[in-house]
Amino acid sequence: MEDEFENLVADVFSRRCTSRTVLETITGRWAILALAALYEGPYRFNALRRRVDGVSEKMLSQTLQALERDGMVLREAEHTIPPRVEYSLTTLGREAAEHLIPLISWVEGRMPDVMSARETYQGR
Amino acid sequence: MEDEFENLVADVFSRRCTSRTVLETITGRWAILALAALYEGPYRFNALRRRVDGVSEKMLSQTLQALERDGMVLREAEHTIPPRVEYSLTTLGREAAEHLIPLISWVEGRMPDVMSARETYQGR
Repeated sequence: MEDEFENLVADVFSRRCTSRTVLETITGRWAILALAALYEGPYRFNALRRRVDGVSEKMLSQTLQALERDGMVLREAEHTIPPRVEYSLTTLGREAAEHLIPLISWVEGRMPDVMSARETYQGR
Repeated sequence: MEDEFENLVADVFSRRCTSRTVLETITGRWAILALAALYEGPYRFNALRRRVDGVSEKMLSQTLQALERDGMVLREAEHTIPPRVEYSLTTLGREAAEHLIPLISWVEGRMPDVMSARETYQGR
């Protein structure tokens, strides 16, 4: 099965290609922000939740679980009371973040152009 | 208002920053694929729908509308019968695609690592 997979070329344009689900995992609304935040360094859950302003506990938890499953995020729990759980990026997650951060910076920098496009669109 | 906006720094980490909605417009499930497809050249609606395999008419239409509003996509209708509508990227849209295409290629190329991470996750 593994060899079979490795001989195939992944193609996100094909609806059956699993790569599409991975693209969705890392470009989800909260996943982009979580990956970019974790690129700054490891975070505990509540600190990450404060950094990713507006995310609910449930959504952040689901997001981190999907990122962990796809090998982007490492979850490490220390056996203390209360347990201390820390999230950090894997090599794969760092690479993902390195693609997403320039996209975020580009969006932030291009906001005046987008706002002006929105005004034109609404005024027509 | 415009000057006021331009003096502010956009920050996607802030829940109130409009830049977050733009990031969501271009990283939406179908928007990424539509932007990457349109980077190949202009498309008519149905041809684009075939290229973005699996998208419904409604979802593609909503996606293109949001991309048009945010200044990424140009919609040009020729006054013929039946009307011929063509979609293409604006300069802004090309820049967005130039950030998204390397991300897509990276995901496609890293699928063996993601699949192996998923196996480990499921097996634990």
